[in-house]
Amino acid sequence: MTYTAAVDEMVFALEKVAGLAEAREAGAVELGEDDVLAILTEAGRFAEEELAPLNEVGDREHSRRDGATVTTPKGWDKAYRAWVEGGWGSLTGEEEYGGQGLPMSLQIVLTDIVNQANAGFSLNPLLTVGAVEALQAHASDALKATYLPRMIAGEWTGTMNLTEPQAGSDLGTLKAKAVPEGDHYRVFGQKIFISYGEHDLTDNIIHLVLARLPDAAEGTRGISLFLVPKFLVNDDGSLGERNDVECVGVEDKLGIHASPTCTMAYGTKGEGAIGYLVGEPGRGLNAMFTMMNQARVSVGMQGAAVAERATQRAVAFAMERRQGAAATWAEGGPAPIAYHPDVKRMLLTMRGMTRAARAICYACAVAIDRGRPGRPDADFWKARADLLTPIAKAFASDIGVEVSSLGIQVHGGMGYVEETGAAQHFRDARIFTIYEGTNGIQAIDLVRRKITMADGEVLAAYLKELHGIAEAARGANDLALGGAARRLETAIDAVAEAATALRASLGAGELDKALAGATPFLRAMGLTAGGAYLMKAALHAENGAAAGRAGLARFFCEAYVASVPSLAENAVAGSDDILAATPDILAA
Amino acid sequence: MTYTAAVDEMVFALEKVAGLAEAREAGAVELGEDDVLAILTEAGRFAEEELAPLNEVGDREHSRRDGATVTTPKGWDKAYRAWVEGGWGSLTGEEEYGGQGLPMSLQIVLTDIVNQANAGFSLNPLLTVGAVEALQAHASDALKATYLPRMIAGEWTGTMNLTEPQAGSDLGTLKAKAVPEGDHYRVFGQKIFISYGEHDLTDNIIHLVLARLPDAAEGTRGISLFLVPKFLVNDDGSLGERNDVECVGVEDKLGIHASPTCTMAYGTKGEGAIGYLVGEPGRGLNAMFTMMNQARVSVGMQGAAVAERATQRAVAFAMERRQGAAATWAEGGPAPIAYHPDVKRMLLTMRGMTRAARAICYACAVAIDRGRPGRPDADFWKARADLLTPIAKAFASDIGVEVSSLGIQVHGGMGYVEETGAAQHFRDARIFTIYEGTNGIQAIDLVRRKITMADGEVLAAYLKELHGIAEAARGANDLALGGAARRLETAIDAVAEAATALRASLGAGELDKALAGATPFLRAMGLTAGGAYLMKAALHAENGAAAGRAGLARFFCEAYVASVPSLAENAVAGSDDILAATPDILAA
Repeated sequence: MTYTAAVDEMVFALEKVAGLAEAREAGAVELGEDDVLAILTEAGRFAEEELAPLNEVGDREHSRRDGATVTTPKGWDKAYRAWVEGGWGSLTGEEEYGGQGLPMSLQIVLTDIVNQANAGFSLNPLLTVGAVEALQAHASDALKATYLPRMIAGEWTGTMNLTEPQAGSDLGTLKAKAVPEGDHYRVFGQKIFISYGEHDLTDNIIHLVLARLPDAAEGTRGISLFLVPKFLVNDDGSLGERNDVECVGVEDKLGIHASPTCTMAYGTKGEGAIGYLVGEPGRGLNAMFTMMNQARVSVGMQGAAVAERATQRAVAFAMERRQGAAATWAEGGPAPIAYHPDVKRMLLTMRGMTRAARAICYACAVAIDRGRPGRPDADFWKARADLLTPIAKAFASDIGVEVSSLGIQVHGGMGYVEETGAAQHFRDARIFTIYEGTNGIQAIDLVRRKITMADGEVLAAYLKELHGIAEAARGANDLALGGAARRLETAIDAVAEAATALRASLGAGELDKALAGATPFLRAMGLTAGGAYLMKAALHAENGAAAGRAGLARFFCEAYVASVPSLAENAVAGSDDILAATPDILAA
Repeated sequence: MTYTAAVDEMVFALEKVAGLAEAREAGAVELGEDDVLAILTEAGRFAEEELAPLNEVGDREHSRRDGATVTTPKGWDKAYRAWVEGGWGSLTGEEEYGGQGLPMSLQIVLTDIVNQANAGFSLNPLLTVGAVEALQAHASDALKATYLPRMIAGEWTGTMNLTEPQAGSDLGTLKAKAVPEGDHYRVFGQKIFISYGEHDLTDNIIHLVLARLPDAAEGTRGISLFLVPKFLVNDDGSLGERNDVECVGVEDKLGIHASPTCTMAYGTKGEGAIGYLVGEPGRGLNAMFTMMNQARVSVGMQGAAVAERATQRAVAFAMERRQGAAATWAEGGPAPIAYHPDVKRMLLTMRGMTRAARAICYACAVAIDRGRPGRPDADFWKARADLLTPIAKAFASDIGVEVSSLGIQVHGGMGYVEETGAAQHFRDARIFTIYEGTNGIQAIDLVRRKITMADGEVLAAYLKELHGIAEAARGANDLALGGAARRLETAIDAVAEAATALRASLGAGELDKALAGATPFLRAMGLTAGGAYLMKAALHAENGAAAGRAGLARFFCEAYVASVPSLAENAVAGSDDILAATPDILAA
């Protein structure tokens, strides 16, 4: 199936639903809507022509390791060169270092488009942008001057090296070490799950590596961040010696086969890999989280993007494939299966969940832009971004799995055959709920750190905004919306009540009780926010589009937002069941 | 991870939860509990020793086609020979033809065990048993005498040939044809998605093929069933000429790689493949459904079985893997992740969903046995089996996908690496919601044909039984069950109310309205029945096991049965949203 980027829909979602237009009016964003449309239209064309045709190739060929070299799939090098030439990696980079200084709001839609076209390709630029963010925020001027221009240009790529075999969600146990030596350090250790840790697309790769100084404290406070280039860089900017860092393994994964997931060995050959401290000693996690937070919303976006592609594929199939008569199929004879009520339910679910998840990710990106220092009400929006980040990451990546699974189901037996392409989305999407902090970690972050911000006022302000959407829907008195506004209001109240109870548990020192309810609480928030955004889209839509959007919002609210009170109740009342259950029941 | 069959738990579920003990008391089943335990213990050992070690091999190697031959993975032949020698294919076969005449209740647990060990292997015997069922019920004595003994022994395997490229869920459009020629027919056409349509494990393969006679009516009534052997069988039982049927393709699938999914060509080389009519002309679908119904509960069982294996793997990992401190981990230091509340929630969900799904499948099998002609209250139990079949198939196969997905999540990054094995379960399980009638078709069957049986009395009797479990739970006054009985009663009432409304829609000729609600209705029924069975298990458990089982039942009811009213409401009230939604909203 040929991929077509639905740029108009994405721009609508960004401007009218996620609120970029409002941010512009408030003076928080300069970029005009015409520019947004122009840039994204061009991005859509690039993704259609250069990236989408390689999606299945990448899945089939994998990136392959031979010794210390990793070869990307056929066509990857050409596509990557075109990426660099188009300047697509430099959108958000600082202008001082050759970046375009454009907002995250634009970057998130680019991430959406690129992942719709080719999720396996997307990771390399995505991580490079993250590394650039971290360096911009924390590196010395000298490091910035040496590395940023070429990373922003995409001539060099960046990686994130956090995980070690024994240190996954709990980074406090990481063992990699860095020994001072003059103006640099010698880094030793092994890192796993390093996306694009090695590849053949650029002549240098810049690794950001978490490691401990010799005298470092135990736990997370003893962790520092280091920049370790694959090739050392001479003073004149030319490449010098090969550093002592090597890819010693590439994982055979369920999906995103084109993205090499590397095991990286530092300092195994001699005196250690030469690295440079980024930021303060012991503040490595802090620096890494600068990139993690934006990476998290981007990963959520990956989920919604693969969901979009899966939806487009399923809809196309369901309009083409004919089986059995359907009452609403006027032509008679076998109807396109999209006309069968149960298939239509699946398609509406895919479409609704995808748009809901996208809107949350976009809204998070807009909040990130509005929260930058010096913008109007920056603190308010910074807090909003913090609140939305775990929801965007976890809800949207869950939706990636669920929607791509429905995509297989709509295809019937053909969905299980790899040739069809539906299965690849299902396999690709399965990673997004795991990396950049598992969705369980996101839920815990939401409950422990986010709904507690300013004694709950950050959440309250957000729920008030969602309430406003429901009220506007009531006011619009649109029959097509049915009882959706009522569903939404009930859901918002249920979420608010659950949040109060969770905060009370935390306040009473019942941490486990609060954490046990984190996942259903996050789900409840995602469905509520998503339903509100679908409704907002219906209210903003003009003329012909309004009926369709209202129908989608109504379906989503009746079928899914209606389950929020039950989820919210379980988030609070169900925790005792979890804590009380004895481990013996888990055995076979 | 070494596989161990939890035979005691399965026998408990069969005897005490699904009611085999009760069936025995009622005189409907002869097989004693000691025999059940002995046979299944032996089956467990067989699966552990012969089948489980090949599960990953089969996934990695695939069955491969070279010309018209298909080679199964390394070790498959030895395992299959052991299968035949152990008589594992002959459990339910009629004794007249060398079968053991044992009940479906035993067969379903064997299916559970075999699929826990190796889902890719299981399909070949599973389809052979189905083909044997169809031949026993519909074939002439001559055909039975020639084919059944060797199929029951497993010397020859059987296949089901239904699907054609244009005829999937809608078999009425199939085009394969059969032309009479003396005492046999010449069969022409192409069939797709034929599991084990060709392989190297036996010297003959017996295809059951749906095709049309030359003068047949259009639609489903014009379809007849034919037996088409790969090799013709001489009068003395020796193999004769190669028949004109050939495997012309093997699909590259998402999972169950060891099971060759074949495209079969009939009559492409000469005068047509020689076939023999099974049953009456024009009654082919009827004959095929004899095997389809038992195949459906078996496919549901496959889902629950893979869920079981995924759960065992996840629990083992979560008790081993240590990350971060946990309040309930008394030893201090990094705790096994099973002790983190959010991980525990996932594990409890996996364990609860798996047991719930298993109990439904087992209960369906017991009902099949009790519904056989001549047994006490056979009509009642036949109807019960008919009611439970679509729920067993669809709910349990959905659980297979959901639980294996959680299994990946529990493993974190390791879950996405194929080596771990969690991903294979996820890929394997994804087919069960599709084949033997998609889960959408099952939901439609439940709503159109099953809850309407005897004006709803069949459903009412079942819900009454579930109510009895809830009442017993109230009576037990077990604090560990908390408010679970109330949750269950509310759910049962919601299901009953929704069923009444759906029947009213059907009665009013609003077919699409009823069908639009079919999927959430089936889910609501599955959760309600599953919750009731978990509760029944808690009530039946003795001493030490009771607390764990009660905790699991309570968790399941609070976290999932609590969502039934919302699902049931949506099954009725949400249909208008689906029907009203305009197709334009499905586009990108």
